[in-house]
Amino acid sequence: MNHASPLELSRLRYQPPLPRILLSLEHLGLRASSPSELKEGCESIKQLFPRTYNQGPILFAAGEPEAKSARLRVGVVLSGGQAPGGHNVIAGLYDALKELHPGSTLLGFRGGPAGILKNETIEITAALIDNYRNLGGFDMIGSGRTKIEGQEQLLASLATADRCALDGLVIIGGDDSNTNAAHLAEFFLSAGSKTRIVGVPKTIDGDLKSREIEISFGHDTACKVYNELIGNLMRDALSARKYYHFVKLMGRSASHIALECALKTHPNLVLIGEEIAAAKTILDGLTHQIATLITERSAAGKEFGVILIPEGLIEFLPEIGSLIRELNTLLAREEIRTEVDRLSHIDERISVLCGHLSPDSALCFARLPYTTQAELLFERDPHGNVQVSKIATEQLLIATVTHELAKRAAAGIYRGSFHPVHHFFGYEGRSAMPSQFDCQYTYALGYTSALLINAHLTGYMATIHNLTQPCDVWQVGGTPITALMQMEERKGKRVPVVKKALVDLQGPAFKTLVRNRARWAKDDLFGYPGPIQFTGPQEVVGELPLTLILESQGAGTIA
Amino acid sequence: MNHASPLELSRLRYQPPLPRILLSLEHLGLRASSPSELKEGCESIKQLFPRTYNQGPILFAAGEPEAKSARLRVGVVLSGGQAPGGHNVIAGLYDALKELHPGSTLLGFRGGPAGILKNETIEITAALIDNYRNLGGFDMIGSGRTKIEGQEQLLASLATADRCALDGLVIIGGDDSNTNAAHLAEFFLSAGSKTRIVGVPKTIDGDLKSREIEISFGHDTACKVYNELIGNLMRDALSARKYYHFVKLMGRSASHIALECALKTHPNLVLIGEEIAAAKTILDGLTHQIATLITERSAAGKEFGVILIPEGLIEFLPEIGSLIRELNTLLAREEIRTEVDRLSHIDERISVLCGHLSPDSALCFARLPYTTQAELLFERDPHGNVQVSKIATEQLLIATVTHELAKRAAAGIYRGSFHPVHHFFGYEGRSAMPSQFDCQYTYALGYTSALLINAHLTGYMATIHNLTQPCDVWQVGGTPITALMQMEERKGKRVPVVKKALVDLQGPAFKTLVRNRARWAKDDLFGYPGPIQFTGPQEVVGELPLTLILESQGAGTIA
Repeated sequence: MNHASPLELSRLRYQPPLPRILLSLEHLGLRASSPSELKEGCESIKQLFPRTYNQGPILFAAGEPEAKSARLRVGVVLSGGQAPGGHNVIAGLYDALKELHPGSTLLGFRGGPAGILKNETIEITAALIDNYRNLGGFDMIGSGRTKIEGQEQLLASLATADRCALDGLVIIGGDDSNTNAAHLAEFFLSAGSKTRIVGVPKTIDGDLKSREIEISFGHDTACKVYNELIGNLMRDALSARKYYHFVKLMGRSASHIALECALKTHPNLVLIGEEIAAAKTILDGLTHQIATLITERSAAGKEFGVILIPEGLIEFLPEIGSLIRELNTLLAREEIRTEVDRLSHIDERISVLCGHLSPDSALCFARLPYTTQAELLFERDPHGNVQVSKIATEQLLIATVTHELAKRAAAGIYRGSFHPVHHFFGYEGRSAMPSQFDCQYTYALGYTSALLINAHLTGYMATIHNLTQPCDVWQVGGTPITALMQMEERKGKRVPVVKKALVDLQGPAFKTLVRNRARWAKDDLFGYPGPIQFTGPQEVVGELPLTLILESQGAGTIA
Repeated sequence: MNHASPLELSRLRYQPPLPRILLSLEHLGLRASSPSELKEGCESIKQLFPRTYNQGPILFAAGEPEAKSARLRVGVVLSGGQAPGGHNVIAGLYDALKELHPGSTLLGFRGGPAGILKNETIEITAALIDNYRNLGGFDMIGSGRTKIEGQEQLLASLATADRCALDGLVIIGGDDSNTNAAHLAEFFLSAGSKTRIVGVPKTIDGDLKSREIEISFGHDTACKVYNELIGNLMRDALSARKYYHFVKLMGRSASHIALECALKTHPNLVLIGEEIAAAKTILDGLTHQIATLITERSAAGKEFGVILIPEGLIEFLPEIGSLIRELNTLLAREEIRTEVDRLSHIDERISVLCGHLSPDSALCFARLPYTTQAELLFERDPHGNVQVSKIATEQLLIATVTHELAKRAAAGIYRGSFHPVHHFFGYEGRSAMPSQFDCQYTYALGYTSALLINAHLTGYMATIHNLTQPCDVWQVGGTPITALMQMEERKGKRVPVVKKALVDLQGPAFKTLVRNRARWAKDDLFGYPGPIQFTGPQEVVGELPLTLILESQGAGTIA
């Protein structure tokens, strides 16, 4: 850290407060609920997780400790994409372990779950963690996307846990990583291992959420980074009065980020993938919707605006979804790939492929703009699958809207001038310095993970309730991961997975959008949140995600 | 402002401090220097500006006031692209005018210089300006790119100044707008108008800079916004260890933004347009340079990195510059445009155009990636000119580097995996909330503009020296705009223009880059500046542009 910036140096000195209940571990008891409080029985899950299924959620509460504070050896791993606050989970975990017993040891597995399989560890010392407190990124120990799924990997993990003599293993990850954590917990119990498994809910996408998990960490900070930029673009659009900004936002499976950003910044239009899927809207329909917005604003003298688009949009459009599936099947065939690849001209490749597609998909493909066709043809993984994340949906929409506006101009319906600019905000938000909320939330999650391990619990996710209240009165506990799981089809097989939370079209956050969006389309009620602040008035520094506030008003806290 | 964010509300309450010298206007005198102190005589400029040329720079200093504080009517206009701090120039101007005389009036011209031509004004009241203090954007009165150049426009401006009975007109703009300001000042004097013209140096690009102007406003904030994002990407790259981020940064004529960002964030590579032009580097050379960086990092186990690219790069490459000029000439010919436009297949269009190009340019064009060819063909303005700003240089480099790495892989020289991600950071920074430096600098510039008008000076730019010192001891004054001008060829004619400052390859900022860049390429000494902070430790809130610090160490302050 010899080149730390002034702000980093300042952040390193910040000590996140702890929920009051965690301040005196000698008087920290446990309150357990019965499993039935959480969910109806799910036979398949129960059968697959016989040892970890019959657990209930727990809350820490003042009382007699279940287990006395022990000297613990714990491992920690970061799994999947970066989310702001990862380092603070580890800091909270470290501080709690040392508070429980000064002789405790924390090992970080390097480069994600692969580090477990290969037993690559680094000891987390005070000197090391003190260089990363309250900072973004996962670079202290790295992360990775290796999954721990099959028998071989479970056995390798067990061998590592044994060799490291781990009392516990904390897995910081999203829905897939927590699914893996549930398998590990069950497997370790069946093998008689002493290593307890605790998950921590991480994902900027916000799709690891349920009654038990109010929010995943990192979502707040990432949205705040995007909102700073969206607000800046809005102010710029309103000043220059001649650009339409098409902003694609990270979040492939769910549109939580787009929704939270819209609630804070009030764009002229935000597309919500879940709504588009439910309405079976096609590209033509979307194009008309956007062109009509632009036509109406132009008639009101406004040749500018801001439109938010979720990254996963293209897969929610039924005809493009079908086309992608057909292309994947076609390009998986060796002879087709050879036929296409030997053609030097792109136009010829397109003709050949169109000949093999169903008439609907051929028409859909033929009508796509040139660059999108090229992306569908060339951005393929080694199996021939189209890489959806590389399709520039924001540019596709710009192309179709430009075409539609030209038609309207020719028909005399539209007289404006359309200057689109496209953006993709994603990577910028994943490793940002965590907001006050994410600093405190992740520190408390890490701290709680140590306490769950100390209480001999396994297969739990660390959970914190009451998040819209000051940190002081947060409720701290754990939820059995199996209680968050359901059976889903993956690659043709029914498997148990932690459920992904999509945007609830009946929920208070989406309904707030619906109530306001007609005004946001016409009037320019843009919000300018500005950059994340770490010191200053609490109403600035402590701003919470609007989705969290709206959803907490609908629901209660668990008793 | 009924929907202002918490941070906006907090920023509205901020009162920028003033340089000490401006605190008591009753004792504010003037110290004038003779013109020769600034520059050698330039005969053409002298002849074109007979009334405003023979002026010297002035400094405000304790003493007897030149002119007593008067009730003034002043107009203000924002010209060109947004830059953070524009609203604070107007706030400083407003506050100074009211301090000089409570009966003074400030009129804002709407939508940029066109507002002067059409006499569209809005009175700046306390209620209005209080909604925009310390906030970004130019939306209070808008901006525009209309130029005031010809006789007709000068006369229209004079008519407006007369009708509004203006004592002064403040033009907030870049080099072109200040060139226009110089013409207006000379013309108004020749017409016997009482309206004094004062310019304010604005541009995020940083290319309005000289011995007399330490920095233009907005550059600091824009760079800080980009640096926040670049730092976030670096932290993400170092965490994920699998992406190369190609970041294009705004700044077409000069690479000051790329240089300042590099000095703060230490990328693995930064391209500086001025250096590339001086070395006559061609695209092939650049491609090899980048591919070699990636190859060497890959050999060291690093499949990630961050590369900064100035927006104007493509024009600095000699062979692409020639190609663009040839294409412009070709596509200006009606018969060629017709021939090309009637072809439906893009490949055919390319063949036809290549047939008309010189052999060198045809080869250059043929070797460009497909999307760049398409951009060169389709992104044309109504005159057939290629729109350079729409060429995605960052994607062009990704394409050529991908191709080169594939060749190296085939030859066994490179064994890595290359996952590039491209970004363009520009619009995000133009309307951001101004940093403390830009808040204070612009407020002082606005305040100074009022004092220059009150002192009956015209054809001056407000200038502030000693900027690396606390605001308290800043030196405040004005520089004759003509002293910043030189004769240049524009559209085949020699005309007087305010000189654009390019990156000085012998200057201390560039030399600092040269001294460090070999280490930055190999080691990952990334800097993480984080988001702009408005409260907190002064070493965080008051951070200055590194270029400004380095250049001030080389130069002295004027006496």
